[in-house]
Amino acid sequence: MSEALDRARAAHEAAAALGRTTDSQRTAAVVAAADAIQAATPAILEANARDVERGRAAGLPEPLIDRLLLTEERLRDIAASMREVAALPDPLGRVVEGRTLASGVRMERLTVPLGVVAMIYEARPNVTADAIALTLRSGNAVVLRGGTAAHDSCVAIADAAREGVAKAGLDPETIQLITSEDRAETVELMHATGLVDVLIPRGGASLIQTCVRESKVPVIETGVGNCHVYLERTADVAMARDIVINAKTQRPGVCNAAESLLVDACAADELLPDVLVALHEAGVELVGDEACRAVAQRAGVPMGEATAEDWGTEYLDLKMSVHAVDDVDEAIAHINRYGTGHSECIVTSDLAASERFLAGVNAAAVYANASTRFTDGGVFGLGCEIGISTQKLHVRGPMGIDALTSTKYVLRGDGQVR
Amino acid sequence: MSEALDRARAAHEAAAALGRTTDSQRTAAVVAAADAIQAATPAILEANARDVERGRAAGLPEPLIDRLLLTEERLRDIAASMREVAALPDPLGRVVEGRTLASGVRMERLTVPLGVVAMIYEARPNVTADAIALTLRSGNAVVLRGGTAAHDSCVAIADAAREGVAKAGLDPETIQLITSEDRAETVELMHATGLVDVLIPRGGASLIQTCVRESKVPVIETGVGNCHVYLERTADVAMARDIVINAKTQRPGVCNAAESLLVDACAADELLPDVLVALHEAGVELVGDEACRAVAQRAGVPMGEATAEDWGTEYLDLKMSVHAVDDVDEAIAHINRYGTGHSECIVTSDLAASERFLAGVNAAAVYANASTRFTDGGVFGLGCEIGISTQKLHVRGPMGIDALTSTKYVLRGDGQVR
Repeated sequence: MSEALDRARAAHEAAAALGRTTDSQRTAAVVAAADAIQAATPAILEANARDVERGRAAGLPEPLIDRLLLTEERLRDIAASMREVAALPDPLGRVVEGRTLASGVRMERLTVPLGVVAMIYEARPNVTADAIALTLRSGNAVVLRGGTAAHDSCVAIADAAREGVAKAGLDPETIQLITSEDRAETVELMHATGLVDVLIPRGGASLIQTCVRESKVPVIETGVGNCHVYLERTADVAMARDIVINAKTQRPGVCNAAESLLVDACAADELLPDVLVALHEAGVELVGDEACRAVAQRAGVPMGEATAEDWGTEYLDLKMSVHAVDDVDEAIAHINRYGTGHSECIVTSDLAASERFLAGVNAAAVYANASTRFTDGGVFGLGCEIGISTQKLHVRGPMGIDALTSTKYVLRGDGQVR
Repeated sequence: MSEALDRARAAHEAAAALGRTTDSQRTAAVVAAADAIQAATPAILEANARDVERGRAAGLPEPLIDRLLLTEERLRDIAASMREVAALPDPLGRVVEGRTLASGVRMERLTVPLGVVAMIYEARPNVTADAIALTLRSGNAVVLRGGTAAHDSCVAIADAAREGVAKAGLDPETIQLITSEDRAETVELMHATGLVDVLIPRGGASLIQTCVRESKVPVIETGVGNCHVYLERTADVAMARDIVINAKTQRPGVCNAAESLLVDACAADELLPDVLVALHEAGVELVGDEACRAVAQRAGVPMGEATAEDWGTEYLDLKMSVHAVDDVDEAIAHINRYGTGHSECIVTSDLAASERFLAGVNAAAVYANASTRFTDGGVFGLGCEIGISTQKLHVRGPMGIDALTSTKYVLRGDGQVR
């Protein structure tokens, strides 16, 4: 028997009772978990210090250490964000439709929890707290599998949250964290059909592709964002520059950052130079096709040669590929081929081109004249997000607590038969 | 290169243009496909005769032959049902939410097609026509993999439909049918990630479990229905009898038929005898636990011994298992353990028991005092169904054309950045 299956079974058993709790019980439990995490600050920081020390000894790059690092302030923010989730309106028991059937049977369709949500994620301790708040608020039990590098921090956070939940009178078994570092446990979790209702992986492309390939429980694909900004021939040069710089450089390590710049070949000489200079000044490494390299050279901006692989690469870094296209249709085709269905943007002043792009691009979020960086649960008004879905089933785009619900038909009759 | 991958790729390529068609183009194409199928009646019946002959020679049981058999009248019904799908309101381009973000960016979330829907199904030629109508109406390309026993019929129907679609001016490549009978093609189809957006298996438990286990593309689990009718101690005897007889015998081979009868042990002597006599008279074979066998014996009704396996079996036949429980909580626990999350029913006159059951049972449709047979796309007002989802992700219960859509965020700005 594996730990993953034991924990999935424990979550499955706890889920039924959690589904019968009231909104105020769940709200109180989320607040109690946040309080308990904040109260456990010394223990959590101590655990985190062990993780950070191990990470430094193992030569973890500094940005990853920073992602792993907790401080008193960061823990305060984590708890505050949990309390925001507690304050969201109840996602359960909402009647989304209803009617009386021809036979007189009264039918209604209600929102209900999914049941057991499993999350596999990388070394971000805050995801542990976010996932606990979001699943608890939506009446779901959770099985967490955090990155090994954050092991001690995740255990300390989950322990505190469980304590808080118990204090609020709910079953702490609704929160399960896999503590074994054996990789086989991850596979067991992906195979726990009948116990786990959905698996949400959060991390890099390789983690997500492994889950899609290996998992037998339903997976929601999240977060990989090979996002494009396309400068159509009628784009305003200043707007093009502002949007590209924002989409590429404001936070290059996140999934809604742009990775690739497309430009109409016939307008490259007017549109590109300003943008390339600004990117170069912001420290962005550029690679491009022949036409764009020629423009870059004339503008005095260094640009390497892009390989076919570059068009499909999410750099998550200060690097961008640049490609010239004939027109909006070629831009759409290029994006639909190489994009990951996350966030895509056209800069244009032509109405027809804008509408063609918005309709033709196959992605969770398609923008005309605004930065791809807006794709975010908070910005979209969901309060907080558990990930950004890049698939089309169940939910697409930022996933809030509503994405952690299903529906159920409830029918009341007085003896009707067919 | 496999045929399945070729066909998935062709569907994927055709899907983009299909997504740009108008409502009236898609409506006209569905009507044209229905007309073409009806016009091809002689060729389809000839192909069907070959399938039926092969089936008889292979010793296919008569109910399966009947499921396979097409007649002029059945083809007329199939075409009529396609025309009903054409008449449904457009599921695409509906704005399901919208707001202006704090930055002034105007956001709306629209319904869009899933893209490519794959269906693997058994030897029911009508599913070919239904699937074509439903996917076309919702702007999706389709890859069909029908049961070998219906091979020629499915080819003839799909050929006619493709002809009709072409005549209506749409690309017939949006309809793809795998003609090779090699089983490896099914596996290829299940592995066609990036080309197929969703796989919907329709058939028996083993087909569906194979898809859930093997598929790397997202699957919607459908149709397996181990449905229960639970007679709570306060049930009205006549109502109990009517509902059980209807749920079990009106159409025993379908997924919303009841397979198992639960009864409060303390009321078994009052509630069971009438029901068991009626079931026996209707030709239903009964198996039960010790307590229920004792009641059956006193009522003079034969009842075999149920094994643990019976509680989890979908007979799809005139057979029913009978089990005594202590109370509503034990009934809920039994159903949540052995049920398949399809349709479940309580017969009761006690309000608290009814509400407890409706809230506690984990299934797509939960009934108080009405037959499980009502779970159906037509009855629920969806017009027509492509299957009944027994999973919680994306859609739960009967799936109509809306279940074949996703959404997309469209955002319009004038230069906003974050």
